[in-house]
Amino acid sequence: MTLEAAIQRDREDLLASTRQLFDLPGDIIYLNGNSLGPLAKAVKYRLKEVLERQWGEDLISSWNRHGWIDLPLSVGKKIAPLIGARPDEVLCCDSVSVNLFKLLCCALNRERSRQPGGKVNILTQQENFPTDLYIAQGFSELMGDTGVELVVAAESDLKRQLQEVSGIVLLTQVNFRTGKLLDIECMTNLAHEQGSLVIWDLSHSAGVLPLALSDWQVDYAVGCGYKYLNGGPGAPAFLYVNQTSQQAIKQPLQGWMGHKAPFIFSPSYDPAAGIRQLQCGTPDILSMSALDAALDCFAEVAVADLRSKSLALAETFLVSLWSNQIPNSFSLISPVSPAERGAQLSFSHVSAHAISQALAEQGVITDFRSPDVLRLGFSPLFLSFQQCWKAGNLVARTIIEKLYLNSRFELQNRVT
Amino acid sequence: MTLEAAIQRDREDLLASTRQLFDLPGDIIYLNGNSLGPLAKAVKYRLKEVLERQWGEDLISSWNRHGWIDLPLSVGKKIAPLIGARPDEVLCCDSVSVNLFKLLCCALNRERSRQPGGKVNILTQQENFPTDLYIAQGFSELMGDTGVELVVAAESDLKRQLQEVSGIVLLTQVNFRTGKLLDIECMTNLAHEQGSLVIWDLSHSAGVLPLALSDWQVDYAVGCGYKYLNGGPGAPAFLYVNQTSQQAIKQPLQGWMGHKAPFIFSPSYDPAAGIRQLQCGTPDILSMSALDAALDCFAEVAVADLRSKSLALAETFLVSLWSNQIPNSFSLISPVSPAERGAQLSFSHVSAHAISQALAEQGVITDFRSPDVLRLGFSPLFLSFQQCWKAGNLVARTIIEKLYLNSRFELQNRVT
Repeated sequence: MTLEAAIQRDREDLLASTRQLFDLPGDIIYLNGNSLGPLAKAVKYRLKEVLERQWGEDLISSWNRHGWIDLPLSVGKKIAPLIGARPDEVLCCDSVSVNLFKLLCCALNRERSRQPGGKVNILTQQENFPTDLYIAQGFSELMGDTGVELVVAAESDLKRQLQEVSGIVLLTQVNFRTGKLLDIECMTNLAHEQGSLVIWDLSHSAGVLPLALSDWQVDYAVGCGYKYLNGGPGAPAFLYVNQTSQQAIKQPLQGWMGHKAPFIFSPSYDPAAGIRQLQCGTPDILSMSALDAALDCFAEVAVADLRSKSLALAETFLVSLWSNQIPNSFSLISPVSPAERGAQLSFSHVSAHAISQALAEQGVITDFRSPDVLRLGFSPLFLSFQQCWKAGNLVARTIIEKLYLNSRFELQNRVT
Repeated sequence: MTLEAAIQRDREDLLASTRQLFDLPGDIIYLNGNSLGPLAKAVKYRLKEVLERQWGEDLISSWNRHGWIDLPLSVGKKIAPLIGARPDEVLCCDSVSVNLFKLLCCALNRERSRQPGGKVNILTQQENFPTDLYIAQGFSELMGDTGVELVVAAESDLKRQLQEVSGIVLLTQVNFRTGKLLDIECMTNLAHEQGSLVIWDLSHSAGVLPLALSDWQVDYAVGCGYKYLNGGPGAPAFLYVNQTSQQAIKQPLQGWMGHKAPFIFSPSYDPAAGIRQLQCGTPDILSMSALDAALDCFAEVAVADLRSKSLALAETFLVSLWSNQIPNSFSLISPVSPAERGAQLSFSHVSAHAISQALAEQGVITDFRSPDVLRLGFSPLFLSFQQCWKAGNLVARTIIEKLYLNSRFELQNRVT
């Protein structure tokens, strides 16, 4: 492959035009959409509208006039096709962490109604994103030793554990460090065979991976609004509850916005039907409007095309990188096989932080993850093949220079 | 009092100039700042900056470069003087409902460490805002009958109950319907005498009432960002934990942002010191920046002046209203004595909804609360005495017309 080939791929790219939807500085190559998606132009216009006309002029009446009150459901409906869910199975609200807690409570209540009195296991992976582990730990401690037992398994041992432990399974599809994928369908089936309920964290999946939550009969899921969905820093998250599981929603974060009729102000909680009852407090309109507008970038796009472009971008990067003489110490920790990873590539190197900084100075924005991981996200909506080709070469050159300088520095230290 | 007197009061008003900080349509009288505060100009500029320069250009680097990561604490520091708290006692995060849940858990854990095994009472008021009751109900149900017992007392019986029940006390200072105030200092003392811990909801207090949480040794509090603080629709809420109570924070919504070192990505939760550990997920930067900018409107303002202007505005309104022949059926349900109410006035009338609609058509924005309450908020930062005088007359005229029309309508119905 050559630069010319990359340019040719851009010409043939079905998604080439979606880059125009974003306000990205022209001189940078943004390989960090997996951490913070960039600003879509529509978001900028929408926020101006929400601020100046809706809030500024129409004030309180906007809750109805501009559909603020419906945003958690209407944003959920826009996310649904991206994760293979039915429109009434997704709700936009709160953060991933808070939503995980709600769904753990829902799952526990269902487990308890099946087997009253027994201890309930929560099986999760050691390599899970920390917040998932912390929330599971917090939940277990709150419920006490007699209520819940947390079983933390190594990723490599998960399949075996799924066939042995029954209870609640809490897993993340894409490993945030390595990008390694878990097979949702297979693992959900294994869990269901044991009578377990599953909660999937799709933070690094939604917007780049083909998902079919309803068909796979996934019980519960959560996901992030600010990564590949480009909703803005700290954007509201989403949660999914399978239609059949919606009959038995029961969790303690039952705020007034989850009430059947919040504006009756009844002193007793009476949940809304379906997913709406998982709302808690007043929805955050500024940031939910931003996410709503950002999701319109997906309107004309097939998830399968997002997936294939994302993998092709990563492949272009790798070919370009490896066309240089890269030292072995800079090693790919993501699966080599594209089918086994998400939309990111991760490398480990002892100087990963310095490399990331040096790349930023050259306009290539990557992510450092402590202690030694360089993470690169291949968001298909706004990256070009030419950029990924160029990035491969720039990363190679930077590593070589860094290592050269470092070794010279070490040599100098030894000499003096 | 006359219109001239109102104009004179505007001339002498210490806070007259703060109205210029807001982007309010010139032709409306906004008596709904107790439900949704208006747009401050600084918010508009700040959001443009956050969107276009911080997120749009500086992207991921803004977490450090523009202090995004510190916003929950720095916004908390701005709220602290408004509620009489120390700078390190307040955190901006999540919603009131979610924060109530966290603090109930903290209080329960403290109670349990004092008296292991015993059942813990949660005493609250029947007239509390529904979300407070719902969260307390949800929490009680989660912990089970042997863990927690919810005691719901009538407001009129609270003092007696505070002297009899010990455990956790969960109260709201300003009754959302009537505006009636509870005496925080007195009730906190009564609760402490019983060995109880107190959680105060300051949603209708912060920004208009003089508070001294630290001096009163209030244990915990929550409050709302979108009412008198003008942070925008569904703005992030805040929570307060007294310095001495910060030694024993323990609650299950322990997301990664409450970790001591979130970017180490340790699989074990190790809480940050102090209030920061009550952060849960990633902070919502767009809406938190909006609130941050809105709080600057309070920079040069004394809370005592806010309180006295707010009461004077309400008094102007009442004098104007009552200078008309108002039917008895339109009755004030707020305390007549200014010292006993917050910054609102509430009236009950069977046609409250229709009156509210008719007032909106004339540019007077009020709030209807089911089934029969008309609620008017007297936000001192942007209302003038002249406006309140005018509003009093408009409300009077509208009621008289409505009632006249209604009675004519009823008469007609009877005749035909």
